[in-house]
Amino acid sequence: MANREEFCPIVAATDLLGQKWTLLIIHFLHTAHPQRLRFCEVQAQLGGLNPATLTQRLKLLESEGLVERREVNSLPLHVEYGLTRKGSDLGPVVEGLNTWGNKWLSPAKSRGKR
Amino acid sequence: MANREEFCPIVAATDLLGQKWTLLIIHFLHTAHPQRLRFCEVQAQLGGLNPATLTQRLKLLESEGLVERREVNSLPLHVEYGLTRKGSDLGPVVEGLNTWGNKWLSPAKSRGKR
Repeated sequence: MANREEFCPIVAATDLLGQKWTLLIIHFLHTAHPQRLRFCEVQAQLGGLNPATLTQRLKLLESEGLVERREVNSLPLHVEYGLTRKGSDLGPVVEGLNTWGNKWLSPAKSRGKR
Repeated sequence: MANREEFCPIVAATDLLGQKWTLLIIHFLHTAHPQRLRFCEVQAQLGGLNPATLTQRLKLLESEGLVERREVNSLPLHVEYGLTRKGSDLGPVVEGLNTWGNKWLSPAKSRGKR
């Protein structure tokens, strides 16, 4: 039973990951893992998502320990983002959701297919 | 690349499933599957979530073809909910999220663990 006063892992995960773009950012970082991506590379993968939204999502994921931000001291100085163990552990779940979405939500498929 | 004009399965899935309680309802229906649950049974599993919210979530899932609502003609007349193939296909993803949340988000564990 999920008493709303108790911890529920699925509700906690939805609260953390349910915002638009969050899982997609994890998907791209997971696809690149163990390589890291620059901000502009993540943004390009997201089709040019506005930088304020991307910054907000990356900061949330960093503060929750899923994403690691690293300043790279080569010229030009830049910042790279990669998944922590907590983040990469979520990779298979995100890939499962990707597979499910491709199978069942694609506009090319009939909606409401059972 | 995920151009925002194009279909993206992860964004589509988040749009559909990102609201609080939605994945948890699928989790309980998946756990019971292939048995079906009555409205009051789902509600009890959810710790007494208010009926209006539960009704809204079930209607959304039914309209999207993940949940099947069936009127049972035994006395007393009642309604049961179960997963369609589209819904049960999402089961392993939800269980993966449950495992991940238990491992990484539980208040008993240190937050931000890497």
